Amino acid sequence: MNENQTQDFVKDITKMSVDFDRWYTDVVRKAELADYTPVRGCMVIRPYGYAIWENIQRAFDDMIKSSGHQNMYFPLLIPEELLMKEAEHVEGFTPEVAWVTRAGSHGELDQPLAIRPTSETIIGTIMRRYIQSHRDLPQLTNQWCNVLRWEMRTRLFLRTAEFLWQEGHTFHASADEAQGEVDLILEYYRRIAEDLLAMPVLVGTKSESEKFAGAVYSKSIEGLMRDGVALQAGTSHYLGQNFSTAYDIGFTNRENAREYCFTTSWGISTRLIGGLIMAHGDDSGLIMPPRVAPIQAVIVPIYRDEATRQAISDFVSPLAAALGQAGVRVKIDWSERRPGEKFAEYELKGVPLRLEVGPRDLESGRLRLVSRLDRSAQEIGADELVARLPQILEDFQAQLFQRALEFREQNTFEFESLDEMVQHFASGNGLVWAPWCGGVECEAEVKERTGGVTIRNFDPAASAAGGCAVCDRPASVRAAFARSY
Amino acid sequence: MNENQTQDFVKDITKMSVDFDRWYTDVVRKAELADYTPVRGCMVIRPYGYAIWENIQRAFDDMIKSSGHQNMYFPLLIPEELLMKEAEHVEGFTPEVAWVTRAGSHGELDQPLAIRPTSETIIGTIMRRYIQSHRDLPQLTNQWCNVLRWEMRTRLFLRTAEFLWQEGHTFHASADEAQGEVDLILEYYRRIAEDLLAMPVLVGTKSESEKFAGAVYSKSIEGLMRDGVALQAGTSHYLGQNFSTAYDIGFTNRENAREYCFTTSWGISTRLIGGLIMAHGDDSGLIMPPRVAPIQAVIVPIYRDEATRQAISDFVSPLAAALGQAGVRVKIDWSERRPGEKFAEYELKGVPLRLEVGPRDLESGRLRLVSRLDRSAQEIGADELVARLPQILEDFQAQLFQRALEFREQNTFEFESLDEMVQHFASGNGLVWAPWCGGVECEAEVKERTGGVTIRNFDPAASAAGGCAVCDRPASVRAAFARSY
Repeated sequence: MNENQTQDFVKDITKMSVDFDRWYTDVVRKAELADYTPVRGCMVIRPYGYAIWENIQRAFDDMIKSSGHQNMYFPLLIPEELLMKEAEHVEGFTPEVAWVTRAGSHGELDQPLAIRPTSETIIGTIMRRYIQSHRDLPQLTNQWCNVLRWEMRTRLFLRTAEFLWQEGHTFHASADEAQGEVDLILEYYRRIAEDLLAMPVLVGTKSESEKFAGAVYSKSIEGLMRDGVALQAGTSHYLGQNFSTAYDIGFTNRENAREYCFTTSWGISTRLIGGLIMAHGDDSGLIMPPRVAPIQAVIVPIYRDEATRQAISDFVSPLAAALGQAGVRVKIDWSERRPGEKFAEYELKGVPLRLEVGPRDLESGRLRLVSRLDRSAQEIGADELVARLPQILEDFQAQLFQRALEFREQNTFEFESLDEMVQHFASGNGLVWAPWCGGVECEAEVKERTGGVTIRNFDPAASAAGGCAVCDRPASVRAAFARSY
Repeated sequence: MNENQTQDFVKDITKMSVDFDRWYTDVVRKAELADYTPVRGCMVIRPYGYAIWENIQRAFDDMIKSSGHQNMYFPLLIPEELLMKEAEHVEGFTPEVAWVTRAGSHGELDQPLAIRPTSETIIGTIMRRYIQSHRDLPQLTNQWCNVLRWEMRTRLFLRTAEFLWQEGHTFHASADEAQGEVDLILEYYRRIAEDLLAMPVLVGTKSESEKFAGAVYSKSIEGLMRDGVALQAGTSHYLGQNFSTAYDIGFTNRENAREYCFTTSWGISTRLIGGLIMAHGDDSGLIMPPRVAPIQAVIVPIYRDEATRQAISDFVSPLAAALGQAGVRVKIDWSERRPGEKFAEYELKGVPLRLEVGPRDLESGRLRLVSRLDRSAQEIGADELVARLPQILEDFQAQLFQRALEFREQNTFEFESLDEMVQHFASGNGLVWAPWCGGVECEAEVKERTGGVTIRNFDPAASAAGGCAVCDRPASVRAAFARSY
């Protein structure tokens, strides 16, 4: 790796329109969001990337706390025998588990310890102590932590061995209540994706072959990236009594009878940052949705001599303070670089608004405001700026969502037959709605014939007319097919 | 383990005055702060304990961000050869490291991976890429994460195999600047301990035998627990060029010459929660400093019939809302238990203020306000309560700090000779100031003769008169000796 590469953010990145994959890696690294490390499959999340994660965390944490969820912290390590109790779960996760087999002066451990790939098994085992009666339910638990899944092919934010996430685990006295929880969280996830990240998502149920290992069913939100490939951005699982039976998580119900809990689990991760990058952006780099942007507006002073520098400082310092007071995350860049370099850096980093202040602006008391979205520029007075900037940012947010929505609409297709689907995916991507009988074999056939297209999700309540695109038996639903990350 | 135990918080705990260690474990578990798990040495942090950690995190995170520090995230796993480059560090930490040796379908790894016991080695290795010139310095990095140290004897919050912490790692162009950073952070730690947790601390330098493995010197804050045993509550290390040399973290200075960075590292952890518990508390349980208390005031409604319940609800709901508006963390306990049980629970949990509301109070419009500190009670009108409660909580905070300070003063001693020290520690604890020559052998002799007393820290700038308590050579400093957790 070239040690100087990370300093070169003002140099050209690969254009999105030329090579999407290289564009993605270029912007992640050169916009200083994340980077590879000497540890196989593990990334470093840099300050600009981590600040996005903090904003996502705060927004979601507020949501779940408002509905009575509580944060806890559970062990990183899971004894092998604990991990191995729920058969489907074991099959799904053991190929990805990293094992601790030696520790300190103890040498070899009697029993290997798994680094958590997800925590249903350890959280269930611990929470059962705190649940005796229906009066102890529901238990609405969440944990912010790192998890590890030994992936063969990794990609910054999207698929790394270690990643950061939240995992919710809830315990209920009835199936209805637990299923309501699954939907509540899915709605929170939709709001995080659409309202915070400006990324429109399909909300629906996963097929059997794509559901969480051990779940009765899984629901998801799915975004469409600007290369036409879908991204699963959050999942909410109804586990029924599968885990509570395997881990003996019972309670005494109102009729004084012993019963197993109904449980759920759900998670969003640093993968969302990858989604936000790929859902927006253009040839020049990222476009940050203002609500999650670490920097919402950057002030670039333009000057040649120290006197002008001082005069501009006297002008913009109180302005930046007033914008901060108005709730805007603003930065003044006083670094010793040419304005053009700074413009390129903040375009690459996707900062929504740029404010240019030069000597002439001091006389007029007006600044030049440039939007990252379409490079449109306007002159605006300082007082007006403070009054209007919060709304300008909200408008930017809405426009960005609209842009992503239009992209999705332009890249959504409806087909009735497998042949049409195969033909479409031979040369293109996007979302394809097609009638489906619900059979695992039909989904597998689509995957094989298209080289990897799967069902992202579907609405089980929306009935479909006609026959399954694959087998022509009566379709039960219309499903959304796509390639996916 | 008795599955019902955790529900019994209203039952008697061991009195602090009877058995401090059992009191500690009882309150941690029955006040629902944390608990043991089936994973050796690893704890579960329960919602009430985790909320304390969140309050500490927010306070410290605000401090470091105000001085330009940035959060990042680095890999959990450290390749063996990376961990092994700084000799003292290796010797200090390898006995406590857990090793990943197998992963997924890969089977045995070519090189074992350590779970981070601390991250100097991996963070240095990664940050060196981002440092070329003095213009890239300082780099002020922080990470909130979990770490693992395979401890032989564990104790909830104080010494567990896995714990949560922040670890700061900074890189500077000069020794002076780096040492200034060590002191800045130490002052932040003092504020966290004294201003947030109401725990007075000694601020000073560690002796050679107690410093961080690989540091030039370490500084610490040390609190005195109510059993007279000291607790190291935070450490800030000056690493000089030890790590930058071993990990080749260099920069080009203003004279265009290549030089190694001067680095620091510093951390506080969930151990602080243990400190907060043991620095305060009494026979009835915890006493929470209001600034960090998850619940600052609890409203206990007292009623016999549904009509009264409704009337009380009409009275306290707007009151609780007004208190929330005033920034008070307030809870109304409507659970179906006798008021006496609730009183005992919130005393055990150390909630600073209790508000009792019964039928008579509805008529008078006044409530009974009871302080956890001394059980003093007063009648107070609802409007007055809203106006005054923030100040009452601040007064409580100041009183709690004063109480801890007086305890420390009553348990601080000055001796001039080893014999006096041995005699004192044979039957008592507390802080002992004694003159010390600075020699490692003298410290070792104190430790041996007293069965474990060590130097907690000292002020190297404060010169001492007379001879070393052990060897009688001229003393260089007065050092603070104590048993410690």
